[in-house]
Amino acid sequence: MKLLDCTLRDGGYYTNWDFDSELVDTYIQSFNHLPVDYLEIGYRSNPQPDYLGEYFYCPVYVMDRLKAESKKKLAIILNEKDVRAEDVNSLLAPCKSLIDLIRIAVKPANFERALGLSKVIKKMGFEVSFNLMYMSDWETFPKLFGLMKETEGVVDYLYLVDSYGGVYPEDVRLTIKRVRDKADTKLGFHGHNNLEMALANTLAAIEEGVNIVDSTVTGMGRGAGNLKTELLLTVLNSKGLIEFNYNWLSKVTDPFQQLQNNYEWGTNLPYMVSGANSIPQKKVMGWVTKRFYSFNSIIRALSNQSQGRKDNIELPVFVPNNKFDKVIIVGGGPSVKNHKKAIHNLINREKDNVCLIFASSKNSPHFKSNDYHQIHALSGNEGYRLENTFSDLNTENRIAVFPPFPREMGTYVPKNFENKSYQLEEFYEMKINNESATALCIEIALLINPKEIQFIGYDGYDGIVSEYEIELFNENNIIFEKLDELDINFYSITPTKYDQLQVKSVYSELS
Amino acid sequence: MKLLDCTLRDGGYYTNWDFDSELVDTYIQSFNHLPVDYLEIGYRSNPQPDYLGEYFYCPVYVMDRLKAESKKKLAIILNEKDVRAEDVNSLLAPCKSLIDLIRIAVKPANFERALGLSKVIKKMGFEVSFNLMYMSDWETFPKLFGLMKETEGVVDYLYLVDSYGGVYPEDVRLTIKRVRDKADTKLGFHGHNNLEMALANTLAAIEEGVNIVDSTVTGMGRGAGNLKTELLLTVLNSKGLIEFNYNWLSKVTDPFQQLQNNYEWGTNLPYMVSGANSIPQKKVMGWVTKRFYSFNSIIRALSNQSQGRKDNIELPVFVPNNKFDKVIIVGGGPSVKNHKKAIHNLINREKDNVCLIFASSKNSPHFKSNDYHQIHALSGNEGYRLENTFSDLNTENRIAVFPPFPREMGTYVPKNFENKSYQLEEFYEMKINNESATALCIEIALLINPKEIQFIGYDGYDGIVSEYEIELFNENNIIFEKLDELDINFYSITPTKYDQLQVKSVYSELS
Repeated sequence: MKLLDCTLRDGGYYTNWDFDSELVDTYIQSFNHLPVDYLEIGYRSNPQPDYLGEYFYCPVYVMDRLKAESKKKLAIILNEKDVRAEDVNSLLAPCKSLIDLIRIAVKPANFERALGLSKVIKKMGFEVSFNLMYMSDWETFPKLFGLMKETEGVVDYLYLVDSYGGVYPEDVRLTIKRVRDKADTKLGFHGHNNLEMALANTLAAIEEGVNIVDSTVTGMGRGAGNLKTELLLTVLNSKGLIEFNYNWLSKVTDPFQQLQNNYEWGTNLPYMVSGANSIPQKKVMGWVTKRFYSFNSIIRALSNQSQGRKDNIELPVFVPNNKFDKVIIVGGGPSVKNHKKAIHNLINREKDNVCLIFASSKNSPHFKSNDYHQIHALSGNEGYRLENTFSDLNTENRIAVFPPFPREMGTYVPKNFENKSYQLEEFYEMKINNESATALCIEIALLINPKEIQFIGYDGYDGIVSEYEIELFNENNIIFEKLDELDINFYSITPTKYDQLQVKSVYSELS
Repeated sequence: MKLLDCTLRDGGYYTNWDFDSELVDTYIQSFNHLPVDYLEIGYRSNPQPDYLGEYFYCPVYVMDRLKAESKKKLAIILNEKDVRAEDVNSLLAPCKSLIDLIRIAVKPANFERALGLSKVIKKMGFEVSFNLMYMSDWETFPKLFGLMKETEGVVDYLYLVDSYGGVYPEDVRLTIKRVRDKADTKLGFHGHNNLEMALANTLAAIEEGVNIVDSTVTGMGRGAGNLKTELLLTVLNSKGLIEFNYNWLSKVTDPFQQLQNNYEWGTNLPYMVSGANSIPQKKVMGWVTKRFYSFNSIIRALSNQSQGRKDNIELPVFVPNNKFDKVIIVGGGPSVKNHKKAIHNLINREKDNVCLIFASSKNSPHFKSNDYHQIHALSGNEGYRLENTFSDLNTENRIAVFPPFPREMGTYVPKNFENKSYQLEEFYEMKINNESATALCIEIALLINPKEIQFIGYDGYDGIVSEYEIELFNENNIIFEKLDELDINFYSITPTKYDQLQVKSVYSELS
């Protein structure tokens, strides 16, 4: 039975496939002393439209260096969905004599197409494995098991991949038997740890006689992560199956444990729910790592999804009752507080002609009075936040407007808004595929059809900004660009770092 | 089948059984909405000689409060080894009508004695459970299974406790069958998560029909911790066995997850090794949480222990070759650097008559010259540290002296000290049961038998100190007290916060 460590490949989901070269040296040197057969060092890939780092492309100088340092067989993986047979030569010719095993991540639906790819790669002299994803769904692909015979001689290892992290040992045993009935190809197992079943499942696979299993140091890997290499080695050692010096294991575990303090891979309640209910962890990982949504709203969305519904509350469509000449869209920046007096002064001059729309609840405590017309745009998690911001909000002159149904995270109507909540029919102008609060506010404003839209509290960010803040900043800039193409007058009246927002100082508007 | 959550009881190993009352309120209220039957809130205990907090004693006002808040059955646990039948009334009479279930933590060797205790408690009207520890060792107690029949009618639940966290589902199934052959008592399972097998083992126990299983929120519990309540509930829910609102689960998981950032319970390499090799985690928990030993040395010690030896290297006994009038013991404090010039001046006046003994490698870079006679006292982890302090140390005029064999953490002889390492035969004067670096230095000094011992770098601690530093400070004070009882002249020549150290300034000694 062979062991394969895929820390750099699977851990790259957290680091964008960039790793300290010192860490990689420690990794390679430690594994030279550990009873693991293959190290999967990353992807090879055609150029992708996103930034993806060193180990997503594994240029030749990387493969050269690791080949020189490592005494182990090296593997890389290809995403079948992004690679056609005609790409194989350019991607893999440089790997010859450096890489031993080419793995292919295959969706069940593309199994037949992948067989063609495999034949080309095999002819180049590589070992080939199929990492056949979504093992818990295999039964739903009518042709899949019938095709498995064709992997014989074409694929060296056929992996069962527990993509959702939701299978149990009995599922592993059953599926292995099911495949064995069809094909004599050597088998592998790649487990995820959402339910902390990665070890139990892998031990079941080993008992069933699979020929190769995967793990990663500290379990580093997409979402909840993988079987931990240190756990697998410790258990196999205690069973007398392998021998090694624990100092080398500890040497490679230590620095990844430190890295884990930053990236926090590993399972938690949202990953457990997604695993137990076979929901892809790609989406959950985005929600969890952005720290934008509370566990509560993630759990609510997941349990909606697990019950086969995306959202369970449909609201009346928003139609503006009043006519306003001016809409003020309120962001979350501190400029609102800093210029509060002037802003109130400005609104009070024509308050029945002004409608405030809140993109974020953060600044709404500065507008507690119910003299103003106020709309709370409640995208994503904002319903919870609004409720947390005001313990008992008087909703006179206020309504809430949600994005179009169905909403990805479900619908949470905050207290006192039960009969004052509406939804957009669609994103009419701002065609974007998420629940951007700014886009929602603009859509509401456009329906109101004012003479102008003013922005306050769209400050941009200072100092150290999180990845999420950068993303939000870029997204807002794109939205402002789109707004600029429409026939509407808009500008910020508080200081802003957004290039796309023109500014007319709030003070210049006051007499 | 019943579920019992024992977060406060088992989590107390990390917080010394003190918990924020707000956290406890959230805990109790959330569980009011979750399908768990029992909450174990802590211990009841006779006074112990250590500080142990609120939930180790569960005074009546605590039980009153939780009883008023909770809709669940409440449990407390007793340590059988500390409780005799005659203590039962004083400990448990106050629990009547507040507590439903009394659990007793029982070692296999004391099983028979515990039966007597159980009868007394049962007569008081409580439900009783035995948490019978070390299930993987049960077979080694010849009388144990024969006595199990006697639990019928005396014990409501007989728990299999996987104390080491090292069992597998097949062990659970076998042991359950083994007990069932002997007794009809209802069974329970309490799993630990060293090998991330707590869920797999608990599911096996449930399949075998046990009547109650334990878990804790976020797995909080001694050492590697327990089965996670949120994981068990999520899995049972996905299997259609229980229903609940995930918002309540998320509400109680969130604050414990934050607490986990401070205390870092959960499994890691040392706990895996101890689990896989049935080594008690009490000791490992001390090593891991003090952050004093590197993972490397913990692993070395554990793998020694798992091979049935405490240490594998015996060294020649230290016998002083030279006679010195003065010994200077060097601690790790910054005063050594601050007064370096004066210290060197002092030593150089009579350098063949002075021997330096280093309790810590921290200050040894200030004495790089090999003109001085130097001894490195290498307790605990110090061998590794010395090696890391000097990349390539010239050992002329230097030797290393270790504590007596066998050493708890094993023996690490640093590079270049292969033929220059010795050990004490015993701690002759400083009778202490650990590897205190200061005691080791003093023993070495006493063997040299100088006219006086001077201390430098024993500064004590300023500002925010860690729990470990407080412990070290107190330990050193006790050692200085012992030294004071002997007929030897000793004092510090650098500033010190140790009450037990007299001071003669290094400057007063210089002319």
